[in-house]
Amino acid sequence: MSLERIDAYLESHAKDFEEQLKTLIRIPSVSAQPDHDPDTRRAAEFIRDDLAAMGLDARIIPTKRHPIVYAESLGAAGKPTVLVYGHYDVQPPEPLEPWLSPPFEPTVRDGNLYARGATDDKGQMFTHLKAVEAWLKTTGGLPVNVKILIEGEEEIGGVNLETYVAENAEALACDYAVISDTSQFAPGKPAITYGLKGLAYFEIHVQGANRDLHSGTYGGAVANPLNALASILAGLKGPDGRILVDGFYDAVRPLEDWEREAFAELPFSEEEFRADLGVGEVFGEAGYSTLERKGARPTCDVHGLWGGYAGPGPKTVLPCKAGAKFSFRLVPDQDPAEVEKLVRKHIEANTPPGVTVEFISHQGSPAVLVDVDSPGFRAAVKAVEASFGVAPLFIREGGSIPVVGLLKRHLKVDTLLLGWGQNDDNLHGPNEKFSLADFHRGIRASAHLLDELSRAT
Amino acid sequence: MSLERIDAYLESHAKDFEEQLKTLIRIPSVSAQPDHDPDTRRAAEFIRDDLAAMGLDARIIPTKRHPIVYAESLGAAGKPTVLVYGHYDVQPPEPLEPWLSPPFEPTVRDGNLYARGATDDKGQMFTHLKAVEAWLKTTGGLPVNVKILIEGEEEIGGVNLETYVAENAEALACDYAVISDTSQFAPGKPAITYGLKGLAYFEIHVQGANRDLHSGTYGGAVANPLNALASILAGLKGPDGRILVDGFYDAVRPLEDWEREAFAELPFSEEEFRADLGVGEVFGEAGYSTLERKGARPTCDVHGLWGGYAGPGPKTVLPCKAGAKFSFRLVPDQDPAEVEKLVRKHIEANTPPGVTVEFISHQGSPAVLVDVDSPGFRAAVKAVEASFGVAPLFIREGGSIPVVGLLKRHLKVDTLLLGWGQNDDNLHGPNEKFSLADFHRGIRASAHLLDELSRAT
Repeated sequence: MSLERIDAYLESHAKDFEEQLKTLIRIPSVSAQPDHDPDTRRAAEFIRDDLAAMGLDARIIPTKRHPIVYAESLGAAGKPTVLVYGHYDVQPPEPLEPWLSPPFEPTVRDGNLYARGATDDKGQMFTHLKAVEAWLKTTGGLPVNVKILIEGEEEIGGVNLETYVAENAEALACDYAVISDTSQFAPGKPAITYGLKGLAYFEIHVQGANRDLHSGTYGGAVANPLNALASILAGLKGPDGRILVDGFYDAVRPLEDWEREAFAELPFSEEEFRADLGVGEVFGEAGYSTLERKGARPTCDVHGLWGGYAGPGPKTVLPCKAGAKFSFRLVPDQDPAEVEKLVRKHIEANTPPGVTVEFISHQGSPAVLVDVDSPGFRAAVKAVEASFGVAPLFIREGGSIPVVGLLKRHLKVDTLLLGWGQNDDNLHGPNEKFSLADFHRGIRASAHLLDELSRAT
Repeated sequence: MSLERIDAYLESHAKDFEEQLKTLIRIPSVSAQPDHDPDTRRAAEFIRDDLAAMGLDARIIPTKRHPIVYAESLGAAGKPTVLVYGHYDVQPPEPLEPWLSPPFEPTVRDGNLYARGATDDKGQMFTHLKAVEAWLKTTGGLPVNVKILIEGEEEIGGVNLETYVAENAEALACDYAVISDTSQFAPGKPAITYGLKGLAYFEIHVQGANRDLHSGTYGGAVANPLNALASILAGLKGPDGRILVDGFYDAVRPLEDWEREAFAELPFSEEEFRADLGVGEVFGEAGYSTLERKGARPTCDVHGLWGGYAGPGPKTVLPCKAGAKFSFRLVPDQDPAEVEKLVRKHIEANTPPGVTVEFISHQGSPAVLVDVDSPGFRAAVKAVEASFGVAPLFIREGGSIPVVGLLKRHLKVDTLLLGWGQNDDNLHGPNEKFSLADFHRGIRASAHLLDELSRAT
């Protein structure tokens, strides 16, 4: 039977897969930083070459920014079509100091592969490529039709994928989309994510006087943009963790009773959670459990702030400008465009006198919820159970994967979110990691999924 | 008569003085940055050599950090003794980008000398050295006894000068202290500063989790130290510009009616002030005029803040730490040690849940008011008028010169604050400047002051 031969192929090629992944990870394809543009290009070429080496018709599609890689295999007549999505771009590695090994030199410690992009998303994305390879090399074909779409602007919320998908909706038509860019619930507890938050990401620049001033000579006479920035940011969220933007909660779909019960039943120790993070107490919106806040309530976080003097010792400057990046995680049925309007209005209304604020919108995507009672979802449950030896939990996640909404909009398709990562993978921070055991389990689950989907009804 | 010969000497040596000042300014004696320690040493040596070349017994006094330069001339039997204080250290030049010429390459544009330290305090301090030189080279002696004390820790609030003065109070005994480290009221409107604010300067480090996290996975679950920092800083001052630290205003001596009248009579155009700074409106404590707030009311300014990602594009990190530097300018009769206690308590009480705050106190000094109806003050008025051609205004300044309080404490002496700078000299910011015409007028006023003080009763 095919699956046994495939499992044997996966076992005998396990080391090759790891080495290939390491080679891909060594390419510092940081999409946010223009000096890495040649690297994003190289990463796209690596993936195209890998797909071509399996015998697929693979090609690079240029965009206005970072290229897309596309490949397809449409030989399974009468069978469903599966679209595999992934991204080869990574978050900036900064700050560099806390990394125990260089971010772009993949290093194995305790069975984990440490590097930027190890789990997000190079490692997870690669599991599907290797599953397809196993089918092709073992049986000469695939049990379903497969379309593979790997982009390079996920981490910067680029618009070029959407343009491409919108213009090629017919060619990309499919029955299911599959993405691995999420986490398991915990080690040994695989999960399928049926809900994701949306995102509305902003940046503000606050300007006071036309030059830096002496805080003795001018203090008290003119507004200080750093004080003003603090006031604006502090005004986003109340001491009870509630977001203070007027109208922000209007569209929020309340958690239903069955969902709150399901959250309460998930295995979770707040004590272990606190110990792992080294915090004395958790903090968030009053009236909701930690898991509810993480997975199903909107949030607001400042990602960076800057202004004035940060060197050693005192400097009595009254700086002329300051800035910050911050975002809101959204839940159904919040509209990111509407949230942007509300936030703009809130900041206009809450800008202290004497400063001006420039408002920049970086990216926006709505939250998604997928139907857990569908043939594709049931097939995914079987595939994960076959590889991990345990049935997956169904979870809602705080992360945002805008492409899920994009595929729904343009291709009218639901996405199966099969997360192979772990919550402590540090995916946007230093020492990002990915368990090699989960890497291989992910490949096997993906290979089985193609088989299950060929029979799904 | 001596003064005519001295004026002639000043005129014939004007260019020499400028070149000497430039040489001193080229030494980047940034006291806050340890990699500049060799430069602070070189600056001290330059001043010692300059004083020695006049024929004074000059020496370098090592301290635990930056050295002090001391020289004296005690040959005027029966005459008053004047202590001249200045500092050779400078503020960090950062940010470098806005400088039109390199901060340590003095450059003349439109009659102004542009460089870090041009006005604060190398240029202003140097006026007194050149006045002493003129007397010594012209008459072979000085009309009063002079003690010259130039330190290298003014910009970092160092404690070593205080230790030295306390231990050598007898040797430093004097009738008047003279400092030029303040500004004129406006171009062509010289001023003597009779009031200075005090300073209490703090730094806080806010810590959340033990590592940077993904804002999707962890947002809403744990406190964000950047949001917390914003909340703490915003809590220092209300929207009406009033400082919210409990008890902060308790010791503040209210402005008297005659002072408010004097402030109202000072020539000041708020429209020009706003135009110069490029702000649409001024901002500060409600109920006080701009000049009152600048000169005579306590203030609070954030000098720097940092945390998270400040690079290009979006990064959805939930950072683990953030920090800020901020200070309060104090007025009579606030005690900086008491203010520190109140601020510590305020921050402890206003730290949001889920973060810890490390509190660092950088420097503290009380405000000072000197007696305008004293022989020394009257002598200074005459000297300034003789050189500038117009009587000086009496002003209270927002800047803090901790040494004024220090000299009062240990030597029981009042300080004559003869400011040669201008308010737009940008003394702690980029493109710091000093008017060369004021440099020369300052030297002449100082030379005349020595004469006036010899006859002051």
